[in-house]
Amino acid sequence: MALPPTVEAPLHDIERHLAAVIASFALPDALRAAIEYAALGPGKRIRPLLTWHCAKTASALASNSDERATETRPAAHSPLAACAAVELIHAFSLVHDDLPALDNDDLRRGRPTLHRHTTEAMAVLAGDAMLTAAFAAMLLPVDGEAMPPSLAISLLAELSSSTMDMIAGQVHDTMGGLPPHLSPIEQVALIHRRKTGALIAAACRMGARCAGVSEGSLEPFARYGEAIGLMFQIVDDLLDVEQNASHTGKRTRKDHAAGKQTYPAVLGVEGARDEVRRLGMQAASLLAPFGEGARPLLELSEWLMRRTR
Amino acid sequence: MALPPTVEAPLHDIERHLAAVIASFALPDALRAAIEYAALGPGKRIRPLLTWHCAKTASALASNSDERATETRPAAHSPLAACAAVELIHAFSLVHDDLPALDNDDLRRGRPTLHRHTTEAMAVLAGDAMLTAAFAAMLLPVDGEAMPPSLAISLLAELSSSTMDMIAGQVHDTMGGLPPHLSPIEQVALIHRRKTGALIAAACRMGARCAGVSEGSLEPFARYGEAIGLMFQIVDDLLDVEQNASHTGKRTRKDHAAGKQTYPAVLGVEGARDEVRRLGMQAASLLAPFGEGARPLLELSEWLMRRTR
Repeated sequence: MALPPTVEAPLHDIERHLAAVIASFALPDALRAAIEYAALGPGKRIRPLLTWHCAKTASALASNSDERATETRPAAHSPLAACAAVELIHAFSLVHDDLPALDNDDLRRGRPTLHRHTTEAMAVLAGDAMLTAAFAAMLLPVDGEAMPPSLAISLLAELSSSTMDMIAGQVHDTMGGLPPHLSPIEQVALIHRRKTGALIAAACRMGARCAGVSEGSLEPFARYGEAIGLMFQIVDDLLDVEQNASHTGKRTRKDHAAGKQTYPAVLGVEGARDEVRRLGMQAASLLAPFGEGARPLLELSEWLMRRTR
Repeated sequence: MALPPTVEAPLHDIERHLAAVIASFALPDALRAAIEYAALGPGKRIRPLLTWHCAKTASALASNSDERATETRPAAHSPLAACAAVELIHAFSLVHDDLPALDNDDLRRGRPTLHRHTTEAMAVLAGDAMLTAAFAAMLLPVDGEAMPPSLAISLLAELSSSTMDMIAGQVHDTMGGLPPHLSPIEQVALIHRRKTGALIAAACRMGARCAGVSEGSLEPFARYGEAIGLMFQIVDDLLDVEQNASHTGKRTRKDHAAGKQTYPAVLGVEGARDEVRRLGMQAASLLAPFGEGARPLLELSEWLMRRTR
């Protein structure tokens, strides 16, 4: 199911900048090819699209409400560097999570996973390089212009803390170790919030920061990101139960086979669907104050609710 | 062979700050324990000691020569954040390089490697977390004081580009792919310059930057770092040929067994020893203009020349 055209509009610019970031490093040919396979191959680019559209939505807000306080307004800059960074973090995490020692997946986005396409050694090192490149991406100029240092620092803080959350969530998901007093639904929520939700919420906050939104006005973007981050994961879990591998392009029912906690397992399929609808309404109400300017973000959350792969 | 006391003097402060950086992240217990095992266990801390002593040596330079131009002098800050960052990068690289898919090492610094001590999955994820923590370390305050953004940006650029070099060097070392027109000695030099030299040189430059040295005055620190980075690697290669596992605390003769290019293999043992002496003299001459202030750096390079493990 294709993304709505308004949502996809910046895709070309985002992918061109992502390719330029990767091309900026002096790398052995095989390493560059591995990174390009993992980061520039088929993918929905949800996270960078969120960063981009949150920046656009927020820039209307920043220019309206802070008009008389330009002196103290945080610096703004193109969101393209942050777009490349969040996509590189996402791509790195897929490559390492797919490794034999972790999820042991052979198929990703309809193609062999990187360690199947190349070697396990290359997948480890290419993942490390993509993680490094994500931080470096924030330091590279966009269209010849360097990011203001104070903005770069706040974006790098978002990026590092959400990446750390993601790794912590993956540890919980594959190895357990959750606080024993949590109920099953609290355990699932904690894993998802850290493993997938944190980076999605950070992608939204980073976009708003690129628009020069002050710390105090980030809240709706953060909460929108948290709502759709959780929605995204529940939809993924539902797809895992309901679809077959040829449709989603990856091995399915693996969560069930691995005995992992999921929303459909804890709430039932209907309960999980209700939760998706509730989160979709929450996202819509967070966007309402932004009016027409937030249409792409609204269409993105509606698409997430409906998506089948 | 213990480091000279003047060199080791800041070790306690460095290790305390490194531990504080790791403690600052909210992590699952098992992940935290894995990171502490790999990053706080026995180790010589050569890289952060270089950062520290380059900062101290350079700060004399910065305060002497730039006295009348305080306005345009780059910002200075404690080198402890950079010390923690370079050690975390080094520790991450050892954990991933030791993995079965790469060097497949069981022993490191006299103890089981992290994937032997825990699991392969944990070693992958703990390595990822240490790499992330290295970038985050630069954003954390030291003794309650945040680093000036412009300094943080220049340090993060050094850190990301040297880490990328290190990964590229590891790709060449384990998978080849070097330009075919290079002679054997040029191939070995290129691998070492990227795999180990880049981070060591960056550690030195980062220290000088923390002292507020201007871009144009970094050169002697960068060249000192390059000389001792290469010296370090040649000594490692010589130890690999000459020592046994019980003495160095890791499996030896593995380079020979793996058919890897090394300095002793290309230059012969005596030729490699001559190269170490030449680099030691080069380091000493680079430090000469700094006089007594550079004594710890001089003692460190002399120790590297003499070290047996």
